[in-house]
Amino acid sequence: MEQLSKGLDVIHKLSAETTWPASVTPMAAGSDGTEGFWPTGFSAGAVSANIKYSNRKDLMLLVTDRPASAAALFTLNRCCAAPVTLSREHLQHSSSSIRAIVCNSGNANAATGKRGMADARAMADAVAQELSIKPEEVLVASTGVIGQLLPMEKVLSGISALGATMQRNSVLDAVGAIMTTDTFPKFFTLGLQLSGGSLRLSGIAKGSGMICPNMATMLSFLATDAAIAPALLHEALEMGNRHSFNAITVDGDTSTNDMVSIFASGTGPEITAGSQDYALFCEALEALMTFLAKLIVIDGEGATKLVGITVIGAADDHDAELAARTIAHSSLVKTAIHGEDANWGRIIAAAGRSGAMFNQEDLELHFNDLPVLKPGLVADFSEEAASEILAKDSYTITLRLGNGPGQATIWSCDLSKEYVEINGSYRS
Amino acid sequence: MEQLSKGLDVIHKLSAETTWPASVTPMAAGSDGTEGFWPTGFSAGAVSANIKYSNRKDLMLLVTDRPASAAALFTLNRCCAAPVTLSREHLQHSSSSIRAIVCNSGNANAATGKRGMADARAMADAVAQELSIKPEEVLVASTGVIGQLLPMEKVLSGISALGATMQRNSVLDAVGAIMTTDTFPKFFTLGLQLSGGSLRLSGIAKGSGMICPNMATMLSFLATDAAIAPALLHEALEMGNRHSFNAITVDGDTSTNDMVSIFASGTGPEITAGSQDYALFCEALEALMTFLAKLIVIDGEGATKLVGITVIGAADDHDAELAARTIAHSSLVKTAIHGEDANWGRIIAAAGRSGAMFNQEDLELHFNDLPVLKPGLVADFSEEAASEILAKDSYTITLRLGNGPGQATIWSCDLSKEYVEINGSYRS
Repeated sequence: MEQLSKGLDVIHKLSAETTWPASVTPMAAGSDGTEGFWPTGFSAGAVSANIKYSNRKDLMLLVTDRPASAAALFTLNRCCAAPVTLSREHLQHSSSSIRAIVCNSGNANAATGKRGMADARAMADAVAQELSIKPEEVLVASTGVIGQLLPMEKVLSGISALGATMQRNSVLDAVGAIMTTDTFPKFFTLGLQLSGGSLRLSGIAKGSGMICPNMATMLSFLATDAAIAPALLHEALEMGNRHSFNAITVDGDTSTNDMVSIFASGTGPEITAGSQDYALFCEALEALMTFLAKLIVIDGEGATKLVGITVIGAADDHDAELAARTIAHSSLVKTAIHGEDANWGRIIAAAGRSGAMFNQEDLELHFNDLPVLKPGLVADFSEEAASEILAKDSYTITLRLGNGPGQATIWSCDLSKEYVEINGSYRS
Repeated sequence: MEQLSKGLDVIHKLSAETTWPASVTPMAAGSDGTEGFWPTGFSAGAVSANIKYSNRKDLMLLVTDRPASAAALFTLNRCCAAPVTLSREHLQHSSSSIRAIVCNSGNANAATGKRGMADARAMADAVAQELSIKPEEVLVASTGVIGQLLPMEKVLSGISALGATMQRNSVLDAVGAIMTTDTFPKFFTLGLQLSGGSLRLSGIAKGSGMICPNMATMLSFLATDAAIAPALLHEALEMGNRHSFNAITVDGDTSTNDMVSIFASGTGPEITAGSQDYALFCEALEALMTFLAKLIVIDGEGATKLVGITVIGAADDHDAELAARTIAHSSLVKTAIHGEDANWGRIIAAAGRSGAMFNQEDLELHFNDLPVLKPGLVADFSEEAASEILAKDSYTITLRLGNGPGQATIWSCDLSKEYVEINGSYRS
């Protein structure tokens, strides 16, 4: 309950600070956060299967009452987990027509070899049997410790108990069951007004320490009642991902289990390629994904700050992203952010080693609207004004490299002693 | 004196553990570490110029009594400091015939624009005037805080006081004057027996938090009495650097001021291209540079462990280095090393996102000689045996990717709360 109330506080605060697209209605999460959460056509449930801890929901199922268009993006890590391999295969075999996704926490089923693949397959088979659907209509996701075999007896009896828990409003149980080191649940719903009627976009996410291979790690499940073809849904998901989940970093690590998936039940208005409605849908989806991505950074392991690192004036977007990512990942920048120290030298030094092309004489740096570094390497700013900004929970660092058209933003957090504490001792 | 006694302890211990090449004689540093330190033809001195702190040597000069062959490697950071730009220019204008290098700590003269270049030039000019040599025969190096102008009055009166301090044995003062957050001085001398007689190779280094742009950061000055042409000396320096200073990491940052330089006075035996003596010289130089590089990692900010990350069986050396560097830089691996946690999942997950090609089923992992992961992702090892290794000050992690010929080793350290402490508050 403490986690929920912290989550609702963070969610309401971030929602109030967010500039939402005009066509979108953020749906206040309410005191219990659940009323009418999932779009029509969906239900979810969760149970305690005692996979790693006792008396804690750790197995969840999200189901559509008819075959849904589905799209998913997976980790590019070569050591990808068994459920990632299996879900990729099922999406292909079912022609992206999916009925359910099952997800457990406490064990990532990663680096588990042939036995791990058989276990992931057994999870899909068991769900298929319970729901009388085909195994390839089931996606599987896992998160938790790497390199340990799943306790399959517990998992399978958990799956047979899931059926009784399914409800359309069951979002808190579902989110709770995918949390690992998360300190609060992450979920949000948007209403969207289109020419053909209104629809809903809902999403849940987990992740803390983006991307922590041990906690294996970033998951998000999105749902909409739109009627949209799988290929178009995939395109919208990919575009949205670029500036949301793919633009955040806590520690630069990319997990073995990362997965972002979306399901469209088709009970709402139809969305076709090239339409104005499709553009609005993409805009709303990116807004929802960005919101959930920021919640992950806010909950970054040991994090106390949400900082947007924006690079502009680069030769191209690729160069801008190189510089922004290198700054965002720099341990020295992150510790300075933590120490609320206006250490601009570390920021330009990180840009300098990023591989992005620029002339150091052209650099311009701002903290929010405060000019910190002017062209010619002139650093002439009020330390007090800088300190005031750096003391905030959230602010923006903007670095101009030159006069090119390239730009990129990465959302990052600080590096604290708590991060070392959490990660020095997690496994044991 | 406390720093010196710590330094001598670390240096003696590491020297005893090192497998030195057969033709090399490590010269015990002795209780004062100075007797006959520099090769013939060299002298050094240092003064307190009060650049940042008072009553602490912060300006040093290394001089040869005749024009020396010189070679240097500089940071690739686009935001390189003024002394880096100037020294590169001087090496070119003097055809690599150099008489002196002057170095200050406390201020990096980086990100200082046109005024910074003029200040670096004024330092070289002042040294040239004192020694009655040409300005382009002087190299300049600086280390310390980025983005502040040098107090030139103090620097110039320091330079005019340096002459009286020059001695052949003056190594401790010289090392002391280039230290910043270093907790002990780093220096060593090797004797080398060649067909044409014996020679000496000496080196000093500074760095703690490799590579910390704020402390701007890694410097090493090497000296030999060999008679060797500049081009050959440059080649030997580059080869040696690959497996020494270029193969260490504390936090993955690359400074604005990094410089490794070597001077050959030519009073000793001659070394020519393609000779057996050249091969022995290169071997000894790499051994000395690796020794000094390891001292830097041991003194890494907040570091308690020196860990060699070796990747073998890669498609080629480039792939091996990609994987080794990604593992060595991973905050999650570094915190696990700090926590003495046999968290092998983080190691293979870092390799998996490195871009190196491999099949996860082929991976093999060892801590020292202990097999931790066998092909097929079988992790079957004694936690006790692993804990015993991970509790050591120094050990090796070896990851086999497959059956290719590629291999690489990176020397890394752990990530501790002290690192966050030091870097969250340094500037202020």
